[in-house]
Amino acid sequence: MPADGALLTDLYQLNMIQAYLEHGKTETAVFEFFVRNLPPQRQFLVAAGLEQAIVFLKNLRFAPEELDWLKGTGRFGADLIEYLAALRFEGDVHAVAEGTACFADEPLLRITAPLPVAQLVETRLINLLHFQTLIASKAARFVLRAPEKLLVDFGLRRAHGAEAGLLAARAAYIAGFAGTATMLAAREFAMPLYGTMAHSFIQAFDGEAEAFAAFADSRPDHLVFLIDTYDTEAAAQVVVAMAPKLAAAGIRIEGVRLDSGDLIALSKSVRQILDAGGLPDTTIFASGGIDEPELAAMITQCAPIDGFGIGTSLTTSHDCPALDCAYKLQEYAGVARRKRSEGKSTWPGRKQVWRAYGRDGRMSGDVLSLEHDVQDGEPLIRQVMKSGNRMDAPAPLAALRARAARDLQHLPENLRRLERGSPYPVNIAEPLRRLAGEVDLRTGTGGA
Amino acid sequence: MPADGALLTDLYQLNMIQAYLEHGKTETAVFEFFVRNLPPQRQFLVAAGLEQAIVFLKNLRFAPEELDWLKGTGRFGADLIEYLAALRFEGDVHAVAEGTACFADEPLLRITAPLPVAQLVETRLINLLHFQTLIASKAARFVLRAPEKLLVDFGLRRAHGAEAGLLAARAAYIAGFAGTATMLAAREFAMPLYGTMAHSFIQAFDGEAEAFAAFADSRPDHLVFLIDTYDTEAAAQVVVAMAPKLAAAGIRIEGVRLDSGDLIALSKSVRQILDAGGLPDTTIFASGGIDEPELAAMITQCAPIDGFGIGTSLTTSHDCPALDCAYKLQEYAGVARRKRSEGKSTWPGRKQVWRAYGRDGRMSGDVLSLEHDVQDGEPLIRQVMKSGNRMDAPAPLAALRARAARDLQHLPENLRRLERGSPYPVNIAEPLRRLAGEVDLRTGTGGA
Repeated sequence: MPADGALLTDLYQLNMIQAYLEHGKTETAVFEFFVRNLPPQRQFLVAAGLEQAIVFLKNLRFAPEELDWLKGTGRFGADLIEYLAALRFEGDVHAVAEGTACFADEPLLRITAPLPVAQLVETRLINLLHFQTLIASKAARFVLRAPEKLLVDFGLRRAHGAEAGLLAARAAYIAGFAGTATMLAAREFAMPLYGTMAHSFIQAFDGEAEAFAAFADSRPDHLVFLIDTYDTEAAAQVVVAMAPKLAAAGIRIEGVRLDSGDLIALSKSVRQILDAGGLPDTTIFASGGIDEPELAAMITQCAPIDGFGIGTSLTTSHDCPALDCAYKLQEYAGVARRKRSEGKSTWPGRKQVWRAYGRDGRMSGDVLSLEHDVQDGEPLIRQVMKSGNRMDAPAPLAALRARAARDLQHLPENLRRLERGSPYPVNIAEPLRRLAGEVDLRTGTGGA
Repeated sequence: MPADGALLTDLYQLNMIQAYLEHGKTETAVFEFFVRNLPPQRQFLVAAGLEQAIVFLKNLRFAPEELDWLKGTGRFGADLIEYLAALRFEGDVHAVAEGTACFADEPLLRITAPLPVAQLVETRLINLLHFQTLIASKAARFVLRAPEKLLVDFGLRRAHGAEAGLLAARAAYIAGFAGTATMLAAREFAMPLYGTMAHSFIQAFDGEAEAFAAFADSRPDHLVFLIDTYDTEAAAQVVVAMAPKLAAAGIRIEGVRLDSGDLIALSKSVRQILDAGGLPDTTIFASGGIDEPELAAMITQCAPIDGFGIGTSLTTSHDCPALDCAYKLQEYAGVARRKRSEGKSTWPGRKQVWRAYGRDGRMSGDVLSLEHDVQDGEPLIRQVMKSGNRMDAPAPLAALRARAARDLQHLPENLRRLERGSPYPVNIAEPLRRLAGEVDLRTGTGGA
């Protein structure tokens, strides 16, 4: 199945482009992508997905067979097909760096391009930016809840398709996860890999001892035994019993994994068994349906667990599988625009976000301004593509991880504690407010 | 980004395969994919994703550059690389047809293949079957709530990546949606396309009347105006005012779309305006954050809406973004196996599902049996691949839609009404229970 391509768009984009071409609406448009409102489950977001968005724009073109198919639908005029055949993204892109903490109303990306082009790319840009921002924002919460623990993405199998699994691994890594279980993500993004064994491995042997011995023999490095297939505590005893023989062969049992049952109680009893059996350095790794409440309980109750495999709850952002985001026209042919639909009105014009910090180094508030209205603080939006060319080489993931780590460190304390309520202040600069009023006066009501 | 391929798997699968090869564990394994428990938001599921699973198995092979990369990780022996280079799926597959209503514990797919092969494919098979089953099951609920309405998938933009958007369109269509807004899904799956216009189109013109006139001129067929950009009722008046001129040009206004505000109240006032303006045949289409509660309210309160664009709630299965599913070893080397982990025990052996119907034609209960233990009713599982070859050509989507429509029609009334509680009966045949007991006796506890 093609994972990319210019047909990753909605029919209405092409319908509109046909009308734009026929009515001379091909001047420069400015669209911004932003999240309208944070859901109650999120007090901040972590921007991600920009790299894939840039690559999408760089590679944007209709293949001959796509144009033939479009022609064959009978829906479009020859002028549109011709326009699409020549279409390349030669516009400008401004964006917030991946790994940046961000909030409602703050543009994460701005596209400046001829209206038909800027319109065409809407669907895939939202698709790319929304998903990785969603996952990085969820992953950051696990990182804040368990800052001392090893966190690994286990979620490809229940991610929504292949691309979701791969991009979720990337987004979680940016937000501070240690790595992933997914081979292809490791290959695509040069990320650390983690993996143990499945229950089927144990079941394929006549008993756990035999299965463990075979696995240790074949995979002696980073050896982790899965011990919950039949009876967790009994299996921990099996591990202890075989340790001397393995040690004699130079093999160290790095850890055991629990994947079911009462993880808090079992981790405590397994820790005792391992310690009493002379394996105090053998770690305990836990997995199996862990979301934030389970993780928080394990941390609060001091479960002696050293690392966590986080799957479904991470890669589907299970408690909040979508953000209320939009990509909206803010300027056309040099004139600012805004939508005023009930509950969905937007701030017009090209914008900048300015971030201020307190004396303690913590983020103290943002100001949303027009692009050239300089405010106090650090501007978050910078140009990343000029006339269709990227300004910089792709940022290494390590740099994006460092950015996210810095921002998580500098969040206000109530946000770091993941408390609900008391939203982070994002103030609207006065000139931006004035512009919104002017746009409303100009457009009047109901098609004046 | 590669959307498919043999590296869409977890590290632990390759770790296990290395150990399987070195310890002679290459005999025939039987794995089954099933949903462990239905979540409270779902009383039934609709199976989907089999076609993509078959294609994945048919095409399974490691490309030379993938093998080189694996070699370069330094993790694996030359024997494993050689085995993977030659690996093809030459096993058998048995499955439930796409579009079939199904329940917890019922295998949707069975793989019979050498243990290393059956193990390797776990991750991607779950990834494919879980997601489409999730979405078809969600889509079926919209269909049951609004059986007389046009339902269209609008969800690519907030789907979790490109593949999720495409496969969600397909799964929703199987479950009874009329079509999609996604161009590439229409091309891939030959599905009907729907689309109107965006707010940006309106905003790019100086007023709604001018925008509508331009759009009608360029896109006169299936003409639908988006009327909520500024003031919905005022825009409906604009539509009425321009209708005679359009009619004179031979253009019919097929519909208007509402995308924000109180859709129930607005649809009623817009209906009045259209009717009073001589446009009784102009339909009303609604979109904008509609999930089941909103749809149910619109139906109950007789909102005069003819069709709905369903986006995020459909393509993320927002109220339940994952199912508790598994792919488990049920037999190895001719001996039945089961996992007994707390809360996650499975039924061993190769299984069949038998579905009985009452006199009223409604489904009355299923029996889960061993494969050759013939029970009353219709067997749901049949062979779809033999020695790596598919038994039949891909089923046309129309046939899968018909299957789903038939099953939704025949659900018990409380399930059709989407009532919570009173689960559908799935009984375990006595010989299967006996086998589970025998397996437990054989494996004892804790690695006996």
